[in-house]
Amino acid sequence: MTKDVEGFQGKDYHDPPPAPLFDAVELTKWSFYRALIAEFIATLLFLYVTVLTVIGYKSQTDHADPCGGVGILGIAWAFGGMIFVLVYCTAGISGGHINPAVTFGLFLARKVSLIRAVLYMVAQSVGAIAGVALVKAFQNSFYERYGGGANELADGYSKGVGLSAEIIGTFVLVYTVFSATDPKRSARDSHVPVLAPLPIGFAVFMVHLATIPITGTGINPARSLGAAVIYNKDKAWDDHWLFWVGPFIGAAIAAFYHQFILRAGAVKALGSFRSNPTV
Amino acid sequence: MTKDVEGFQGKDYHDPPPAPLFDAVELTKWSFYRALIAEFIATLLFLYVTVLTVIGYKSQTDHADPCGGVGILGIAWAFGGMIFVLVYCTAGISGGHINPAVTFGLFLARKVSLIRAVLYMVAQSVGAIAGVALVKAFQNSFYERYGGGANELADGYSKGVGLSAEIIGTFVLVYTVFSATDPKRSARDSHVPVLAPLPIGFAVFMVHLATIPITGTGINPARSLGAAVIYNKDKAWDDHWLFWVGPFIGAAIAAFYHQFILRAGAVKALGSFRSNPTV
Amino acid sequence: MTKDVEGFQGKDYHDPPPAPLFDAVELTKWSFYRALIAEFIATLLFLYVTVLTVIGYKSQTDHADPCGGVGILGIAWAFGGMIFVLVYCTAGISGGHINPAVTFGLFLARKVSLIRAVLYMVAQSVGAIAGVALVKAFQNSFYERYGGGANELADGYSKGVGLSAEIIGTFVLVYTVFSATDPKRSARDSHVPVLAPLPIGFAVFMVHLATIPITGTGINPARSLGAAVIYNKDKAWDDHWLFWVGPFIGAAIAAFYHQFILRAGAVKALGSFRSNPTV
Amino acid sequence: MTKDVEGFQGKDYHDPPPAPLFDAVELTKWSFYRALIAEFIATLLFLYVTVLTVIGYKSQTDHADPCGGVGILGIAWAFGGMIFVLVYCTAGISGGHINPAVTFGLFLARKVSLIRAVLYMVAQSVGAIAGVALVKAFQNSFYERYGGGANELADGYSKGVGLSAEIIGTFVLVYTVFSATDPKRSARDSHVPVLAPLPIGFAVFMVHLATIPITGTGINPARSLGAAVIYNKDKAWDDHWLFWVGPFIGAAIAAFYHQFILRAGAVKALGSFRSNPTV
Repeated sequence: MTKDVEGFQGKDYHDPPPAPLFDAVELTKWSFYRALIAEFIATLLFLYVTVLTVIGYKSQTDHADPCGGVGILGIAWAFGGMIFVLVYCTAGISGGHINPAVTFGLFLARKVSLIRAVLYMVAQSVGAIAGVALVKAFQNSFYERYGGGANELADGYSKGVGLSAEIIGTFVLVYTVFSATDPKRSARDSHVPVLAPLPIGFAVFMVHLATIPITGTGINPARSLGAAVIYNKDKAWDDHWLFWVGPFIGAAIAAFYHQFILRAGAVKALGSFRSNPTV
Repeated sequence: MTKDVEGFQGKDYHDPPPAPLFDAVELTKWSFYRALIAEFIATLLFLYVTVLTVIGYKSQTDHADPCGGVGILGIAWAFGGMIFVLVYCTAGISGGHINPAVTFGLFLARKVSLIRAVLYMVAQSVGAIAGVALVKAFQNSFYERYGGGANELADGYSKGVGLSAEIIGTFVLVYTVFSATDPKRSARDSHVPVLAPLPIGFAVFMVHLATIPITGTGINPARSLGAAVIYNKDKAWDDHWLFWVGPFIGAAIAAFYHQFILRAGAVKALGSFRSNPTV
Repeated sequence: MTKDVEGFQGKDYHDPPPAPLFDAVELTKWSFYRALIAEFIATLLFLYVTVLTVIGYKSQTDHADPCGGVGILGIAWAFGGMIFVLVYCTAGISGGHINPAVTFGLFLARKVSLIRAVLYMVAQSVGAIAGVALVKAFQNSFYERYGGGANELADGYSKGVGLSAEIIGTFVLVYTVFSATDPKRSARDSHVPVLAPLPIGFAVFMVHLATIPITGTGINPARSLGAAVIYNKDKAWDDHWLFWVGPFIGAAIAAFYHQFILRAGAVKALGSFRSNPTV
Repeated sequence: MTKDVEGFQGKDYHDPPPAPLFDAVELTKWSFYRALIAEFIATLLFLYVTVLTVIGYKSQTDHADPCGGVGILGIAWAFGGMIFVLVYCTAGISGGHINPAVTFGLFLARKVSLIRAVLYMVAQSVGAIAGVALVKAFQNSFYERYGGGANELADGYSKGVGLSAEIIGTFVLVYTVFSATDPKRSARDSHVPVLAPLPIGFAVFMVHLATIPITGTGINPARSLGAAVIYNKDKAWDDHWLFWVGPFIGAAIAAFYHQFILRAGAVKALGSFRSNPTV
């Protein structure tokens, strides 16, 4: 709610240097392995709670009364609320990605190294598979019947619509992540660092409200992969590429938007545009 | 929860000087164009997520089970939650208006220049049209059938009621915006600057709970314009003036209330009222 | 989540002196009248949004589909969310009471003077009546049919149960208000002053979830009075005393609990209990 | 969202020393008894509001319309929202446990003494029984008919599934509590101490969304005990051990995970692993 008037001299914030592509020292630190464990556990808990909510909702509305479950609204809360809690808990340990698309966006912005990005995605994917496997073990009578929490394109929507919905949805999420972790904004707006996990969770909540009817809402390739591996039906695999390509494109656009438009990378590239030294 | 006892000397806060009506220097800065881009993108995402939620809710309750959608409560969350997320993300870039009525209120309080106010409204309106256009493209089989997310006066309500509902609803929103951006209060109450985007989002959520049955809830002329342009039916256009006049009147009353009642402009004007130097 | 170990020397906080019962100087200050205006406007907006939500919910579930409204959950959100927004907005102006029971509790704890307490209650009551009057004007075809938002004891509950429910519900609210405004705790726990309006709003939300089926949930005599005056039916007036006596008793117990148990007033009274100088 | 790079020298935070197992001095302090009273009152209010919401929901959906109650979503909000409010209110007095499993986890991590842990659990259990007793007194015609808010294993789930669901659910909660109270993280991430009560409440909300269909969701032995004592039916007692053993195992795993994995206790034990002095 305040306009910032910036100068290139006398900055009150500090941008860390770009992460190297390969950082061998990183691999010798316990804090690196600890971060991988934290991403694994967080993604496991994320899928466990959310898919259990999906299956429980469907079993209740089928067996008992039609309004007896937590509703689609409750499912959207489960996804958004878990991201809020887990980002809160893991931000200081691993950065709180819990999503390969977030990791990819931060890698493109040179905030994490390539080796960290790849190993985070592996930890997230394995965690997601483990989380859905727990749900199947707990709900074996309902898991298959109620779709296994898998992301699929709903009837009546083209692949282009599904892909676009995933792109825009992931853009909303990763744009919020960039806004929450911007050192320049943290230095100026006190709400930015303090609230950070809350709007990130809300972004996930919002996108689920909008796109559950279209794709079930992925915007997280680990989430889609975990459900597809455990559910393992043709339909889920046929559409599966959508839930990697879409989120990665959306994350890339968000990284570009933040780095080149909002953080004035563009104006630096277009130096001749500036006729006024106080830009 | 604390009373402030104020003196005119020794202020612990700083009111910025009034924005000039025309500020030619502003037009030479990249940060100004960046703010316009941020308002355009934010309003686009706002309409995309919210109208998609409205259409998806209606298609699900119609086709599947009556309790199958996110409910009116979910729709109200979509509007309020997106404003929370987008104000959080854009506050440091553009001020986070995302609404011509907010821009108008801040212009009246001399917090933005006339040229900025006008160009923000253009960016917001174009963004809103683009956001609804995306929804129509994604949901072409349902978009027309389910009302296109357009604001219309419901049957049984007079134009006076609809206009009044828009005025009071926008007053609630813009009053919250003024409270959240008051430099005097930010200096004294730590909750004011830190939480700021959250009560602004909640104000939008609350007004939607109350007035969806009457007007569908506008309180944002760009939102109403975007839906009217893409839906393009007579009824939506016949009522359309309500959704500009009402929000602008509500924003003006909120600006007056904040500047002249709460910030003691009135007492300065009525200097003779003060018999006590410590007012 | 931290234990405080206190000593009576070297306090890192400052308790303001008790408010005088009568403070003639107060009446000469513009900030006092401004606080009354803020309480009037806030209570008006509170009743307007919440009662409009109640009436709109009932008209929608009756006319359209049975699951078509915002639900009881939406109504509970309307009450709690508005308190969050309005306490956020008015805390720095009037203290953000918006409720005669809160004012009464803070008066008992000597945080506001008698004259301020009485005039706040008058402003709140008049504001509440005006807010419900607006709803009646806007919803004249539905207002009477759907109960006018009035608090009444539901069938099957005794007056003792209704009174007790109001006492405990108001205790939850006023206990939260005392916790949020305790200068000792604000100095030590950073979440206390920053979040303050949010748990106060949530306390109202929670009590509504629990006691809407019993009394409709008052816990705010101005809210009950405003609806009773405009609805003006025998049943609402017959039970009306419950919604003043209950909240005032609950607020008194909360004030006692906070001042004498939690803030160690008791141990000061029972000085002989302390055998250890570092209590 | 930030990675922490730690060194063992020059720490910017301070870990308090482990609490002694027995601390006789503690017993002479008023602040200790005040903490017990605060835990008793908080757990009483927690059970009162949540079980009243459960009974009210069931009576409304049975008597009136099927969508007439607050829904399972409203019940999940009641549990999570009350924990948010009560942790906010009691954190500075007793640490805000309100749950024997939380107390057990913090005892294992040597953050509270044994005597404090045992007496907290007694206070919580007595408070929970008193809270449910109030609900029974207020709702005597509905309390028995609608299950008394007791935790029972739902039909079709084995004891192993119920126990596992309680273990994982409590892990989510206690892991969040440890994250929120970590002095190292509080010193570095401003969101950690400020938001603390909110993600703790959300963790409870999330687990209820996921496991209400399986066990009704305990994750709090006092909550399960209070309902079992007052409801006093065979089924509730037969399954009751699940709601002590599961939460205590989950809390122990969370304590181990936080102390030995995330806080690098493991690396200290495995000193030979470190080849790099800046681990």
